[in-house]
Amino acid sequence: MKMLDTICSISTPQGVGALALIRVSGKEAFEIASKLFKDANDFIAMLSHFVKRFDIYENEQLIDYVMVVKFFAPKTYTGEDVVEITCHGSNYIQQKIIELLLQNGARLAKPGEFSMRAFLNGKFDLPQAEAVADLIESQSETAHKLAINQLKGNFSNRIKMLRNQFVELAALMELELDFSEENVEFADREKLNNLLQILKKEVLQLTDSFKLGNVLKTGIPVAIIGKPNVGKSTLLNCLLKDDRAIVSHIPGTTRDTIEDNFNINGINFRFIDTAGIRLTDDEIETYGIERTFKAIDKAEIILYIIDITETSVVDVEKELLFLENEIDFINKKLIIVANKIDELNELPKHFTEWNEYDIVFISAKRNVNIEGIRDLLIQHIDQKKITDTALLTNIRHYDIMIKIEEEINKIEVGFVQQIPTDLIVIHINAILNCLGEVTGEITTDEVLDAVFGRFCIGK
Amino acid sequence: MKMLDTICSISTPQGVGALALIRVSGKEAFEIASKLFKDANDFIAMLSHFVKRFDIYENEQLIDYVMVVKFFAPKTYTGEDVVEITCHGSNYIQQKIIELLLQNGARLAKPGEFSMRAFLNGKFDLPQAEAVADLIESQSETAHKLAINQLKGNFSNRIKMLRNQFVELAALMELELDFSEENVEFADREKLNNLLQILKKEVLQLTDSFKLGNVLKTGIPVAIIGKPNVGKSTLLNCLLKDDRAIVSHIPGTTRDTIEDNFNINGINFRFIDTAGIRLTDDEIETYGIERTFKAIDKAEIILYIIDITETSVVDVEKELLFLENEIDFINKKLIIVANKIDELNELPKHFTEWNEYDIVFISAKRNVNIEGIRDLLIQHIDQKKITDTALLTNIRHYDIMIKIEEEINKIEVGFVQQIPTDLIVIHINAILNCLGEVTGEITTDEVLDAVFGRFCIGK
Repeated sequence: MKMLDTICSISTPQGVGALALIRVSGKEAFEIASKLFKDANDFIAMLSHFVKRFDIYENEQLIDYVMVVKFFAPKTYTGEDVVEITCHGSNYIQQKIIELLLQNGARLAKPGEFSMRAFLNGKFDLPQAEAVADLIESQSETAHKLAINQLKGNFSNRIKMLRNQFVELAALMELELDFSEENVEFADREKLNNLLQILKKEVLQLTDSFKLGNVLKTGIPVAIIGKPNVGKSTLLNCLLKDDRAIVSHIPGTTRDTIEDNFNINGINFRFIDTAGIRLTDDEIETYGIERTFKAIDKAEIILYIIDITETSVVDVEKELLFLENEIDFINKKLIIVANKIDELNELPKHFTEWNEYDIVFISAKRNVNIEGIRDLLIQHIDQKKITDTALLTNIRHYDIMIKIEEEINKIEVGFVQQIPTDLIVIHINAILNCLGEVTGEITTDEVLDAVFGRFCIGK
Repeated sequence: MKMLDTICSISTPQGVGALALIRVSGKEAFEIASKLFKDANDFIAMLSHFVKRFDIYENEQLIDYVMVVKFFAPKTYTGEDVVEITCHGSNYIQQKIIELLLQNGARLAKPGEFSMRAFLNGKFDLPQAEAVADLIESQSETAHKLAINQLKGNFSNRIKMLRNQFVELAALMELELDFSEENVEFADREKLNNLLQILKKEVLQLTDSFKLGNVLKTGIPVAIIGKPNVGKSTLLNCLLKDDRAIVSHIPGTTRDTIEDNFNINGINFRFIDTAGIRLTDDEIETYGIERTFKAIDKAEIILYIIDITETSVVDVEKELLFLENEIDFINKKLIIVANKIDELNELPKHFTEWNEYDIVFISAKRNVNIEGIRDLLIQHIDQKKITDTALLTNIRHYDIMIKIEEEINKIEVGFVQQIPTDLIVIHINAILNCLGEVTGEITTDEVLDAVFGRFCIGK
């Protein structure tokens, strides 16, 4: 690990703002930064965690009045000496200060390099580092909560407990191994298998939670489908509108990220482009079928909109039958949205008494009972799961857990086939390695690059 | 002035980044901020200018680990109690913290409101406040230097000196006024007029400097014109390329601002779109003439490109004659760029001996003598002016100085027409008012709104 040099970076978002923050970290952070300031001696004499104003000059030209903090190692984010410079947020000034730092011996930090140093200095483990990246990316309350849980170490602790249990299993196997030369009858393969089954259940729980965790992190994909003129876009506007109103009074909101997203109780729902979805009574039009199916396939929830003034239950059943022949609906939530109730005097009985599907009666045009849809959407996501369990949200962790599952299966087979203990222990060691890879006790450069390359610059 | 409430704002650029900085200012800044932190008592006990980590919770949910600084009034940017919170740069976290501050009694700061409070608390005068906005907007070394000069108070000092001299003039006039009832012959109207002329010269110098100052601030407009296939776009690429190379290795550069700009010695040159400029031998093609003329009209410098392999001095003179009939070339710098010298064995004598215009011989294709153009461009901008004088760069100041010029003219006329002293003093007082408006000693809500409304949020 090249940690001998001193790195620097702009840590606030790109662009022009009132202020910007530049970080310097490394053995020579103080010496390099001191060369920027007119009152270098004052800077050198400064205590840790204290803010002071300095003037940055290049030759005789004042570049900026800045606020500066020194953080003494090891009580810093990276574990190294750190300097933070808050300057005016002009592009020119930000670049000029970076240039001056580079001229004086710092180098530009790679994305995530501050956090990588923090990890390598034992400030946090790998899932926590990954949580920092998730935290920065979090756009919704749920994504934020998942990241915070992971940052607090909930997930890491669960993995460590799991690792301890596998170590115990290994110990028991090793014990068996010691006696095996004496050809002692070992009665307890069944006991070992029972322990393995408990661990397997735990691993399966984690891999199962990935789907929910991942979907909560990135937003629940929702497809809105239905025939032309049933009110799809009016409904979409209804769902988006409230949320936009909430968000738009707060400055700093990136508009484009909410363009096709809305929040309900802090959970992010994400619309999948379903342009081209056109169901007719008897057939699906050729145009856009591929795209339609793909959209439905990616969706976790399907809002199937019908115009209740001109649709019968039989129509709907026919259409659904067609769809179900084409698409695998397992693990998908289908909600039938009966629109245009404002054009009826009363709800048709054949629909109100129809219990086969979740159905909600609305008027998108008059904004009636949109809450009904919201309630059904939120019901589908059992929010308790988020707080109760350490969810698996990271594809890297998921891939490793799948490998662990495979190794467990091999051990099971080994038990059945009476395979010698020393060959089974190989698989347990593989599992321990895998768990070490999750927490970062075992890492390779490739893993570090993959994990920290995801980070934004300056973190 | 409503300065009783406490304001808050995100002060770093919009969007997602490693870190973001949120500022709170006002009488209740400490009390409001304390409500966000789990360890509120630790926060209350904190000293000024000291950085400490705090955990922000909403109900029982951890929102973020943040770094917090308290700044005790009056030694702060605004002159009020200030809290700075550095959080992770996710949109969600930034918004959540702002929400919590609003819930606890702060309100969102208007653009420039922190700086307005600083001004109202006497932290700096109005030109200095305006310089802060210029500083944040500065994209080039020159724009930055102009802003820094103004921030340092160079311009304000010059205005204050001018004001003192007008006060002196007024005093002399008043003296005259005291004696006037006794009908004393006052010999010294000539002396007064001499003093006025000195002041007028000073004012004219400032208004004259506006054109240069403003153009330096926003970038020197350059039009590249010439017939098709003389190498305009190749030359443009040559001029842009070097500069891009310099800028692009520094992260955080906004690409679109350099798209059509290049820096020479820190001075920003800005290309005016001249698409549609096509000079033929005898006439200008109809297409795009309007746009062409507008482009030339807006330009400060015109690079007139010719293909030296197929153009004679007579051709050029003919074309220029045509152009000069259509466009006012006064105050414009015309540079003739003779391109494609790589296709000749020696430079044609009729061009080298032609002294009427600045001419530079280049090959855009082979990148030969592009420095020649750079040198001529930079020669045109006498850089010394920037450091030697307090340039007028602000349209608000310029408008006021023009009013002052008008008042001076009235006084001159008054002297000639032997108008009574008390009527002349009215004009001097108007000038003193004007100068007070420049420095902000005299302000109205409209002026404050106009000045601080230009600022970005959070400053």
